[in-house]
Amino acid sequence: MTDLVTFGETMLRLSPPEGTRLETTETLDARIGGAESNVAVAGAALGLDSVWLSKLPDSPLGRRVVRELRAHGVRPGVAWDDDARLGTYYLEHGGEPRGTNVIYDRADSAVTTVAPAELPVGVLDDATMFHTTGITPALSEPARATTAALLERASAAGATTSFDLNYRSKLWSHAEARDTLTDLFEHVDTLFVARRDAEAVLGRDGEVVEVAHGLATDHGFGTVVITRGDHGALALHDGEVFEQPVYEADTLDAIGTGDAFVGGFLARRALGGDVDAGLEWGAATASLKRTIAGDLAVVTPEEVERVIDEGDGGISR
Amino acid sequence: MTDLVTFGETMLRLSPPEGTRLETTETLDARIGGAESNVAVAGAALGLDSVWLSKLPDSPLGRRVVRELRAHGVRPGVAWDDDARLGTYYLEHGGEPRGTNVIYDRADSAVTTVAPAELPVGVLDDATMFHTTGITPALSEPARATTAALLERASAAGATTSFDLNYRSKLWSHAEARDTLTDLFEHVDTLFVARRDAEAVLGRDGEVVEVAHGLATDHGFGTVVITRGDHGALALHDGEVFEQPVYEADTLDAIGTGDAFVGGFLARRALGGDVDAGLEWGAATASLKRTIAGDLAVVTPEEVERVIDEGDGGISR
Amino acid sequence: MTDLVTFGETMLRLSPPEGTRLETTETLDARIGGAESNVAVAGAALGLDSVWLSKLPDSPLGRRVVRELRAHGVRPGVAWDDDARLGTYYLEHGGEPRGTNVIYDRADSAVTTVAPAELPVGVLDDATMFHTTGITPALSEPARATTAALLERASAAGATTSFDLNYRSKLWSHAEARDTLTDLFEHVDTLFVARRDAEAVLGRDGEVVEVAHGLATDHGFGTVVITRGDHGALALHDGEVFEQPVYEADTLDAIGTGDAFVGGFLARRALGGDVDAGLEWGAATASLKRTIAGDLAVVTPEEVERVIDEGDGGISR
Amino acid sequence: MTDLVTFGETMLRLSPPEGTRLETTETLDARIGGAESNVAVAGAALGLDSVWLSKLPDSPLGRRVVRELRAHGVRPGVAWDDDARLGTYYLEHGGEPRGTNVIYDRADSAVTTVAPAELPVGVLDDATMFHTTGITPALSEPARATTAALLERASAAGATTSFDLNYRSKLWSHAEARDTLTDLFEHVDTLFVARRDAEAVLGRDGEVVEVAHGLATDHGFGTVVITRGDHGALALHDGEVFEQPVYEADTLDAIGTGDAFVGGFLARRALGGDVDAGLEWGAATASLKRTIAGDLAVVTPEEVERVIDEGDGGISR
Amino acid sequence: MTDLVTFGETMLRLSPPEGTRLETTETLDARIGGAESNVAVAGAALGLDSVWLSKLPDSPLGRRVVRELRAHGVRPGVAWDDDARLGTYYLEHGGEPRGTNVIYDRADSAVTTVAPAELPVGVLDDATMFHTTGITPALSEPARATTAALLERASAAGATTSFDLNYRSKLWSHAEARDTLTDLFEHVDTLFVARRDAEAVLGRDGEVVEVAHGLATDHGFGTVVITRGDHGALALHDGEVFEQPVYEADTLDAIGTGDAFVGGFLARRALGGDVDAGLEWGAATASLKRTIAGDLAVVTPEEVERVIDEGDGGISR
Amino acid sequence: MTDLVTFGETMLRLSPPEGTRLETTETLDARIGGAESNVAVAGAALGLDSVWLSKLPDSPLGRRVVRELRAHGVRPGVAWDDDARLGTYYLEHGGEPRGTNVIYDRADSAVTTVAPAELPVGVLDDATMFHTTGITPALSEPARATTAALLERASAAGATTSFDLNYRSKLWSHAEARDTLTDLFEHVDTLFVARRDAEAVLGRDGEVVEVAHGLATDHGFGTVVITRGDHGALALHDGEVFEQPVYEADTLDAIGTGDAFVGGFLARRALGGDVDAGLEWGAATASLKRTIAGDLAVVTPEEVERVIDEGDGGISR
Repeated sequence: MTDLVTFGETMLRLSPPEGTRLETTETLDARIGGAESNVAVAGAALGLDSVWLSKLPDSPLGRRVVRELRAHGVRPGVAWDDDARLGTYYLEHGGEPRGTNVIYDRADSAVTTVAPAELPVGVLDDATMFHTTGITPALSEPARATTAALLERASAAGATTSFDLNYRSKLWSHAEARDTLTDLFEHVDTLFVARRDAEAVLGRDGEVVEVAHGLATDHGFGTVVITRGDHGALALHDGEVFEQPVYEADTLDAIGTGDAFVGGFLARRALGGDVDAGLEWGAATASLKRTIAGDLAVVTPEEVERVIDEGDGGISR
Repeated sequence: MTDLVTFGETMLRLSPPEGTRLETTETLDARIGGAESNVAVAGAALGLDSVWLSKLPDSPLGRRVVRELRAHGVRPGVAWDDDARLGTYYLEHGGEPRGTNVIYDRADSAVTTVAPAELPVGVLDDATMFHTTGITPALSEPARATTAALLERASAAGATTSFDLNYRSKLWSHAEARDTLTDLFEHVDTLFVARRDAEAVLGRDGEVVEVAHGLATDHGFGTVVITRGDHGALALHDGEVFEQPVYEADTLDAIGTGDAFVGGFLARRALGGDVDAGLEWGAATASLKRTIAGDLAVVTPEEVERVIDEGDGGISR
Repeated sequence: MTDLVTFGETMLRLSPPEGTRLETTETLDARIGGAESNVAVAGAALGLDSVWLSKLPDSPLGRRVVRELRAHGVRPGVAWDDDARLGTYYLEHGGEPRGTNVIYDRADSAVTTVAPAELPVGVLDDATMFHTTGITPALSEPARATTAALLERASAAGATTSFDLNYRSKLWSHAEARDTLTDLFEHVDTLFVARRDAEAVLGRDGEVVEVAHGLATDHGFGTVVITRGDHGALALHDGEVFEQPVYEADTLDAIGTGDAFVGGFLARRALGGDVDAGLEWGAATASLKRTIAGDLAVVTPEEVERVIDEGDGGISR
Repeated sequence: MTDLVTFGETMLRLSPPEGTRLETTETLDARIGGAESNVAVAGAALGLDSVWLSKLPDSPLGRRVVRELRAHGVRPGVAWDDDARLGTYYLEHGGEPRGTNVIYDRADSAVTTVAPAELPVGVLDDATMFHTTGITPALSEPARATTAALLERASAAGATTSFDLNYRSKLWSHAEARDTLTDLFEHVDTLFVARRDAEAVLGRDGEVVEVAHGLATDHGFGTVVITRGDHGALALHDGEVFEQPVYEADTLDAIGTGDAFVGGFLARRALGGDVDAGLEWGAATASLKRTIAGDLAVVTPEEVERVIDEGDGGISR
Repeated sequence: MTDLVTFGETMLRLSPPEGTRLETTETLDARIGGAESNVAVAGAALGLDSVWLSKLPDSPLGRRVVRELRAHGVRPGVAWDDDARLGTYYLEHGGEPRGTNVIYDRADSAVTTVAPAELPVGVLDDATMFHTTGITPALSEPARATTAALLERASAAGATTSFDLNYRSKLWSHAEARDTLTDLFEHVDTLFVARRDAEAVLGRDGEVVEVAHGLATDHGFGTVVITRGDHGALALHDGEVFEQPVYEADTLDAIGTGDAFVGGFLARRALGGDVDAGLEWGAATASLKRTIAGDLAVVTPEEVERVIDEGDGGISR
Repeated sequence: MTDLVTFGETMLRLSPPEGTRLETTETLDARIGGAESNVAVAGAALGLDSVWLSKLPDSPLGRRVVRELRAHGVRPGVAWDDDARLGTYYLEHGGEPRGTNVIYDRADSAVTTVAPAELPVGVLDDATMFHTTGITPALSEPARATTAALLERASAAGATTSFDLNYRSKLWSHAEARDTLTDLFEHVDTLFVARRDAEAVLGRDGEVVEVAHGLATDHGFGTVVITRGDHGALALHDGEVFEQPVYEADTLDAIGTGDAFVGGFLARRALGGDVDAGLEWGAATASLKRTIAGDLAVVTPEEVERVIDEGDGGISR
């Protein structure tokens, strides 16, 4: 029995030291990141048996991805490609007003030729949850088709399927995203969506509760979770509305915060928590992530519980 | 003539880079720290002839402690042990809500078998001040007995003795601490205590002035200094009450702040300042320490005076 | 045709890691910095053809300065000296209340013996702008005389000349500065001056607008730009007053902020912008600089425009 | 079916940068190392399904060990202890004549209280090989007893058992080692031993072939592998003698070389290779390890084969 | 008048620290490298006015290439592409027998769509030398066609054209290389070729002098320079043969050695030296390069002369 | 009673990472070095009570020198100067044929104005040995005069005086050195001199034994120690000749090797060893120093003895 299966691309993440620009840096921090493996890592950190499905180059760079995910307790289910390249992204953190800039170098990566038959999809037959995001179908037609096939198979096998809309303007337009994603929603039980994406991509504006109701009604989602940045998250589940403020954090690295939220939510749900508890875990995991360099939520259930109970950590000695 | 003698354990302090967790870090910053040597270092930085008494393993790690204290101007008076280990602590700084976590690995360290006869205690016969803390007697029965013996000898020799209660929940319970420490108070002239420890360990609550009066009356302290975090410090001396607000600081590393306060206070007192001036120096030294990585207050008297006079440093060029 | 020529000293800048003191650091960050080359770099980054004139030792250290300026797009016009040394400055950043401390080790540097005949001054005959600062004439009599000669030649050739007063208390007294600088003002079109320097060095107090008018009237400046720290800048040009607030920034390194302001202002002006636009570019370039380690504004015109349009950067992906 | 199960202690390995001494270093490289997990890692790198059994503190430091072993493809089977400490070793590499110095700080580590009932020993019932070393029984009586119990159970279940004598003078005397180890040999099929240990600990001198025969005869080993430093290795198996020279290497870090040899040998044997091929793989894996920082052989089967076929790597592009 | 124009691809070069593998490293050294810009840098270091022609993405990564080449004194002549990617290569140095491994990630880089019309080819009309290599035509058909066009134009304009065969097995087969390159030889005056490439790609074996004569005769080269690794280089020029041994070096980074040789040879020739002197400068520049991290020969003419005169550097103080 | 007093300049030593040039490095290693304090440090490491006399700027840089020397067990006797600068040297290590280059930036350093009256010269009255070198009198006339005065005073007080000729071509000519140094020899008991300096500076050629005899005879030295690089050292003492080969070493940093030799020799002599034993300690200390980064011999007497007894260190565990 696997608790959580995710599917998507994991990239090499290269970032210069704080205060240094990509144009001038002589060293790059090398880590890995990808929305779906970020969720799998957060899930594993919080107690789930997590599997990540993807395609990688059969090279030191591809093996590096597997190695790091294994370290975080995720079991990789990987199709290997002798010739393909590893998707890469350059991340330059900058204080305001400079902001954080991401340069993708992910075209023609291994995952763009993925097909369901290459993946150990049997794991879905015995999985509690399947999760993917709106980034994957934007990568290539094969990635889109595999996303659709996996959602359908997971759904058919009785897994709860979830989907984080995660619009990326550097990959496709609002219109392209809308057309593709709404087709995929057929086999999605739980939608995670940022409020601004609900409006920009799905054309939903108005009160956030109305947006949630509209999405649930039109696409048949059992659960809709809308994230609103500093204003916290709102979930609609079985007609009931739940609200969750953010836990304040000293942000060192904001990348991966949304994935940590999803991972925390799914972990609590998979472990039997209700939607309220899921939102708390999601928000607490997200706030802890902000204090950690890299995409990944290296946290423990005890730390998540402490944030929920006490708010902050002080000095423990 | 020695101005200040302290006694206690100094450990190797190992900490990962900012934003990185102990579970994943590939490098550790190696420094030293210990409440009593931290005080000796602050004292030496501010002009005192300072001696630190302790027991160390006769190994590169033990010699490293001596080497670093000497660099900071402290004269170590050390009993060497061929076989023992060096106490170690792992320190993981995290922004809130993650907080700062200390993992002690100090059991069976060299100092746990210390005896007065091993130490160059003659230095006490000619010392102005002797200082130790509530951490030392928590380490072992020999450490407790040596603490008692040194306090008694220093007191008999005419030194002013001071004691920082410094309760550590990872070492002993409130009840154990209370029993042991109140016995030691007999030969203590000046008590430093955090308000929360005064309540939790010594069972003193109520108005802070009342707490100070109660402690002074019951244990015969000439001076009681109560620290209250962001609310500053209060001293009771010869029946007179002195208050000192904190100087605001951009905190990079909060560990050692309390010891810097004590070191600043004692330095000013040893150099002839009154209690008021001692509190100012304590608060200014503590605020400077917060901007410096590591346990130690690497400061100058000029910097301390500038903080007192001007509040902050700006850009000097 | 050269857009901008600057003249002054560039030093090796050595700084310890954050939180570490010069007294204890085992590594130093090695960069270069100097007010006039900082301005040239900001100008080049924003599209100007920039030249920097100076004198350097003919050594790896001198060549290093040239190398780094070239990387940033500045063309160095250098007199080489076989025997002289490179000016150096040690920079220790500290959070408040410690503040930032600069230790100059620049005496007898190569530029202190500079003479106009050694420099490729022909570049001035075809330059749009010439800029220098009040640091250069404080370095030595030859540096002062060369400053005067270059201002006169640039002015005679029809370039717009600008001068940033930049008082440095570690180099000379207020009185010495006033006497020397007011003589130089004869051939200066645009004066940049911090309000506190206008008062302390030039003896101008009162309303900032009055100060600007007084300076323009007494010295014949076409433009006076007064910077007021967090209160923004004010320009007087052709009798008209322009005000510009600062763009808020997460400050990582404040050194070079003023030079980035001047570089942004001059770049916009040289590219045809009016004073208003110049102030906007100056303020935006300065705010971006604050997020970057080192003296230099490694920015693009697009980033400057985005700050003006949107205020901050968020996450772009 | 598990290919290889190992049992022993894994420590935190802390080492200063090249050329820097423990007495003065400000940073430590943090890795993990332990003879038996080193073997498991080499085995996993070369294609085996490897399990490592041990006991660890339930702390970030203990979890770090598990995390790193997982990354290298080893499945940890761990008993967790809330209170115990993690064994640590300090490693100072020095060029000759300084040499490499190891300081153990491993007393009272978690594994010293290990008992078979805490470990997932069922994995032995289905394992091809079980491996441990002479370090483990030197750690404590419980560690010795568990070593004996696991050897017996593995042997009873039909696994091939192997044992690397690995004498450590900082843990016990020659006589103590001899007494304890010869008792354990009853359930050992394959002995790995350095020639100098065969002499010093087991009292075997004379021609190396005679030593091998004597050991095989007296203790009933099916295979004896004797390593002779630069002179290569010799194996006696079923009465036949095999010799293997070393592959020359540019040594960056010699620690773990012997374990890489054992891991390479066992991997080839488990994958069906004969003793000759096992020695080749052992020697090639060992030579590759020498070029890699840390205890662990991060290699691929292709690299091992290339060393055997071509001797060195040149530049591949 | 430009001394040397080169054309080819420059990549981002990413390499882990010594002793660390790509699979496990957490940091990468970021530099730039490319055969033709390496030659231009060596030329500029030795006194030539050097221009490098290529196509780059209009991004921080592309600008980084320009920035670094400018620092080394090369004038970039670049076609900018808004959408393309920067070629990248991962370089893992390993002592023997591990060897050095290069992983190219250069498919679809900006230069693969280059066309002569995009480049500032006018610089060729006034150039003394034009140089490119056998890597460029292997990248794409447009890159091949542009190589051919530039060789033809340079030749027509009277420049001396040179070509380093530089076979890369990861880019094409021997047969493909032979067919393409022999066509390009029509407009090449000077051929640089490794002896093993002369045999494997061009099918020339036998005595090295015969190989040189055969190549000169069949393709009409004025000069043929054959490099033979540790055995030094041999040049055939106007029927005369010159031999040059290598200068021994402590090799820290062998990448770029061949390009340093070419740069040194061309620099001496362009400055009026004969073939003998060119070989000396080439060999000396190559040996210095081996002591420097990165692809680039950061050297001075004085250092090159010293190697030729004295062999090594000792300690100069 | 002080065992060893030395006098001379200690500088800040700044060096780029291995393989990186001063022209391009972004970080510098910051250490301290100076021939006489190097000797004092080696002496203290080997058991002597050592004092170092000098003059320093009263700044963080000056205090840093004191701090580091104290860490190594040396007691600094320092005259402080509010305005002066700290001598600095840039050190670029390069493998051959590049070699190691030292750039001095020491003109007008604090020590150039030193006078005996500023120094705590009373320490000489009770010292066993006084040591200085031929670098100090080259720095300035006051430094020369102070050298002479201290030699005379030490000699008068009964200390054994020693002098290392240490010719530095970047400071003065052979002739200047000869004239100044031979005057100083009057109060020198033991001369250390490299054979090449004996020839170049003192005009002594011929057999090394003849050189030693000639020097002893002409200048009245009780002991002459001539170092001959890889050929080891030779001492003439009371008419008897002693020879000492070098201990081979993997050289990481050769700077300070000669000072380590002197420190080892003097330490053994001060502790009662004869000249033979002094040479052994000198050679062993020098070989250990070569494995350590920085000028300083961070060693123990046990390590020195082990080198003498066993030659190398191997792996101790």
